[in-house]
Amino acid sequence: MNIGFIGLGIMGSRMAGHLLNSEHTLIVHNRTKDKATDLIANGATWADTPAEVAQDADILITMLAHPEAVEATALCDSGFLGVLGDGKLWIDSSTVNPSFSRKMAEQATAHNVRFLDAPVAGSKNQAQDGVLRFIIGGEADDVEEAKPLFEIMGSGTVHVGAHGMGTSLKLVVNYLLASAMASFAEGMALGESLGVSQGMLLNVLVGGPVVPPFMAGKKAKLESGDYDPEFPLQWMQKDVQLATQTAYETAVPMPLANATKELYQQAIRAGHGESDFSAIYDYMTGK
Amino acid sequence: MNIGFIGLGIMGSRMAGHLLNSEHTLIVHNRTKDKATDLIANGATWADTPAEVAQDADILITMLAHPEAVEATALCDSGFLGVLGDGKLWIDSSTVNPSFSRKMAEQATAHNVRFLDAPVAGSKNQAQDGVLRFIIGGEADDVEEAKPLFEIMGSGTVHVGAHGMGTSLKLVVNYLLASAMASFAEGMALGESLGVSQGMLLNVLVGGPVVPPFMAGKKAKLESGDYDPEFPLQWMQKDVQLATQTAYETAVPMPLANATKELYQQAIRAGHGESDFSAIYDYMTGK
Amino acid sequence: MNIGFIGLGIMGSRMAGHLLNSEHTLIVHNRTKDKATDLIANGATWADTPAEVAQDADILITMLAHPEAVEATALCDSGFLGVLGDGKLWIDSSTVNPSFSRKMAEQATAHNVRFLDAPVAGSKNQAQDGVLRFIIGGEADDVEEAKPLFEIMGSGTVHVGAHGMGTSLKLVVNYLLASAMASFAEGMALGESLGVSQGMLLNVLVGGPVVPPFMAGKKAKLESGDYDPEFPLQWMQKDVQLATQTAYETAVPMPLANATKELYQQAIRAGHGESDFSAIYDYMTGK
Amino acid sequence: MNIGFIGLGIMGSRMAGHLLNSEHTLIVHNRTKDKATDLIANGATWADTPAEVAQDADILITMLAHPEAVEATALCDSGFLGVLGDGKLWIDSSTVNPSFSRKMAEQATAHNVRFLDAPVAGSKNQAQDGVLRFIIGGEADDVEEAKPLFEIMGSGTVHVGAHGMGTSLKLVVNYLLASAMASFAEGMALGESLGVSQGMLLNVLVGGPVVPPFMAGKKAKLESGDYDPEFPLQWMQKDVQLATQTAYETAVPMPLANATKELYQQAIRAGHGESDFSAIYDYMTGK
Repeated sequence: MNIGFIGLGIMGSRMAGHLLNSEHTLIVHNRTKDKATDLIANGATWADTPAEVAQDADILITMLAHPEAVEATALCDSGFLGVLGDGKLWIDSSTVNPSFSRKMAEQATAHNVRFLDAPVAGSKNQAQDGVLRFIIGGEADDVEEAKPLFEIMGSGTVHVGAHGMGTSLKLVVNYLLASAMASFAEGMALGESLGVSQGMLLNVLVGGPVVPPFMAGKKAKLESGDYDPEFPLQWMQKDVQLATQTAYETAVPMPLANATKELYQQAIRAGHGESDFSAIYDYMTGK
Repeated sequence: MNIGFIGLGIMGSRMAGHLLNSEHTLIVHNRTKDKATDLIANGATWADTPAEVAQDADILITMLAHPEAVEATALCDSGFLGVLGDGKLWIDSSTVNPSFSRKMAEQATAHNVRFLDAPVAGSKNQAQDGVLRFIIGGEADDVEEAKPLFEIMGSGTVHVGAHGMGTSLKLVVNYLLASAMASFAEGMALGESLGVSQGMLLNVLVGGPVVPPFMAGKKAKLESGDYDPEFPLQWMQKDVQLATQTAYETAVPMPLANATKELYQQAIRAGHGESDFSAIYDYMTGK
Repeated sequence: MNIGFIGLGIMGSRMAGHLLNSEHTLIVHNRTKDKATDLIANGATWADTPAEVAQDADILITMLAHPEAVEATALCDSGFLGVLGDGKLWIDSSTVNPSFSRKMAEQATAHNVRFLDAPVAGSKNQAQDGVLRFIIGGEADDVEEAKPLFEIMGSGTVHVGAHGMGTSLKLVVNYLLASAMASFAEGMALGESLGVSQGMLLNVLVGGPVVPPFMAGKKAKLESGDYDPEFPLQWMQKDVQLATQTAYETAVPMPLANATKELYQQAIRAGHGESDFSAIYDYMTGK
Repeated sequence: MNIGFIGLGIMGSRMAGHLLNSEHTLIVHNRTKDKATDLIANGATWADTPAEVAQDADILITMLAHPEAVEATALCDSGFLGVLGDGKLWIDSSTVNPSFSRKMAEQATAHNVRFLDAPVAGSKNQAQDGVLRFIIGGEADDVEEAKPLFEIMGSGTVHVGAHGMGTSLKLVVNYLLASAMASFAEGMALGESLGVSQGMLLNVLVGGPVVPPFMAGKKAKLESGDYDPEFPLQWMQKDVQLATQTAYETAVPMPLANATKELYQQAIRAGHGESDFSAIYDYMTGK
């Protein structure tokens, strides 16, 4: 099968890599071509525009930074949506907002293209190891059809419901990640200010009942102060922004989500935007 | 050994129960005597005042609701501190604030009494099952001496450091609990507002990498709406208040902790104060 | 001159009324026709669609509830922007967000239409009395040309700068209103909880150096509990949402704005959405 | 009359100065004697301890930084409360919390001393110009008796109610100041990020209906960046802390007050603590 893949960042490059190692043919595009160098060297075909990706693709996957990028890639002058043939399938694995996913689903339908919103649970390491979990909204038949691809790129799927529902659950997941990391940073800051050592705090808390399991993967970053990004802080802030914007649309009060969003915004101003989002710890402890 | 125990609420009554089933002799006191009925029936000696508890106690344990209660019990007219003999040991397992624990340590020292702040990780069920974990501040020798008692009441000890350090780490733990529960409630509210079912959300999230393991114990409460308290919401709000008051003392910004505190305050106003703190879910989802 | 006016709510109906009482000819449209009854009875011409308004208008004014309504009215099938002739002037007095105003300016330019974003300072009473103040972004020549109309509908103009700058300053104004009202409500709640009477608080605070002068106009509402809307709470919440969304776009942390937004969201959930925004007082005091 | 005055900071030194220029005899004390140099040079008598101040005082006034300082000065070894004679009057003009004022009233009563909590509205300039306003809790007879002194130091009194009520209203006032200043800073930051100049924003907003009149006195600070303190930011943060602690005691949710408190805490960490509290503007705009 010919698979088009647009968006070759931290996540996309690794997801595309797994597809390239499978029986499928891969056509790739990225805003900047240098991110595609390795994939091309290993046999992927480069396309100069999103439209060109779509020309021969049976299934097209997008993994982009934000809704604006997805919309531009799909619908602009050289966008792919008008080129993907009748009945083809577009899988958007970008983290966007539910109303945007539904809007894309409508645009796809208007172009006789089928659509799945299929964002992923997991970040850089899970992408690398092929253990991402896809959280999917759309028609059950389409999910079934795409499952072999999801299994190549990851190791599990959850079909949540109709279009937009994958994105809905994904925003909840990322909000919980952002919130847990920031609260943990505050708690650590409090403990350290009282003279409890970082080591004591991490040893007692991480792996225990009170702290989410993902924190084990952040421990070394907090200890070393090396925040090489698995998931950049500024993207996390974007995702919490999408969550709060969505909560506005559904009239749900989320005071903690909004406070969390602003804390990350302050951390971005302080220069932590491109670090892993666990760098919120350095911001809160004033390190 | 004669053990005095003051404070027979949800936690204290269970902790005292384990001591009563050991080789030790138990003298108990509580603000209201009816809470002691079962213990007395099983062999505990009732004392009319804290001072009376202290008369024959080798070690005295307090498990009270807040700093004011501890201070009154120790130092008021019929308080125990002036009565406990030279060199005796007072263990305060109440959740209080570090500066208060240090103040009590000083008061104890002034009365030639040794002191440990030894709050617990765990709530009703862990107290019942004898698997509480004691988080301890004080002299290493005193911790060693008391360890057999901690092992009767629980299943683990962490000696964090000097006086007040047990309380310090405990406040971090309870803040993380409060924050995780409230953020989870917000995330659930967002997901449900978007049409993702409660069941889908709980199944995907609880037990996964993003949600703290303790949440598994709250799942049935959220599903049933029965918030029989393991840890009442109003006590949790008090603990977050102690955490933020302590952060003020050490000049640590904790915007999320403060926002969390106010959310629980609003939930208290809405009538959830005596429910388990997981009832913040009902408050946030408007159930 | 033929003036088209679209949007006849609390504000627009009063603004249009002043224009009708001037030498100009008025063509009006509203989503629901009944809001236009009085204006029609007094000589305004009804148009069935936005496009029809544009057919004979020299200047077209929009006063709508939110960006989505402005965009739909301007650009949908029966939108006015394709119909307004070359060189005509569109004045948008709706409270929207700056990036949206700039987008509308671009759309207008693409249709050879001139554009001003000219939101107003003031609410129902100021609209009624013709003392609104227009805060304007756009070309100086266009501001000059429209000044006579602004003077009919109001009593002052501020030309802030280029397209979007009127909207920018307007969002700051409305955020300050929202924030001042909510903080005042919290302060009153605190004072009353301590036994200071509402009357004492209002007498000492309102009119003094610490409280914005607009509060004098809210005093009677707080005293009577009659929150007949001059500016509905849910619209205020929308404006703070636009302010925070804009702050996200310019990467400015606004923790208080976000907290304020969520407080109004909670008040909406509690049923105060259609009341005047000063009803946040009832929400905060639990009345 | 012999007047004792303890606490000669920014406020106290100026208040004492007015008393010194009246017919009364002044005995002063301060933690550090150098603050008293000018007053002594102009005829005030220095006392080495609070107790010594009390020996000859008919009325004793305290103007101290926080509750702990007041308590220590009144009740410690060389405290004044045991020395002030029967029926003498103690006026505490410090900004403290209501439950503390009531506690001091009880302590005073226990020593046969009459008590007024009489904090002031106004800061450095108002103290200098003798236009402070006293907000008073206590017995009406005591207020009447002290009125001539209040008129020397200021230009108005409000008798709010019983002991603690002066302090109650004062905390509301200071919270409103803190909140208005911080919200204004956020609004300015938003406006400036959108390209509206500082000058345009200040000109349109300050003096208008949306911004409290006190802001006119802060304008020059924001323009010049010279934050010579009239009211240091760290004291303002302390007062908001007292307000929120009091709200906790009366179970009133104050999410905005708490968010404001944390913002000032962050500004303190960033080095603005000893600047005027209007320096929150520099913190929020990242200047």
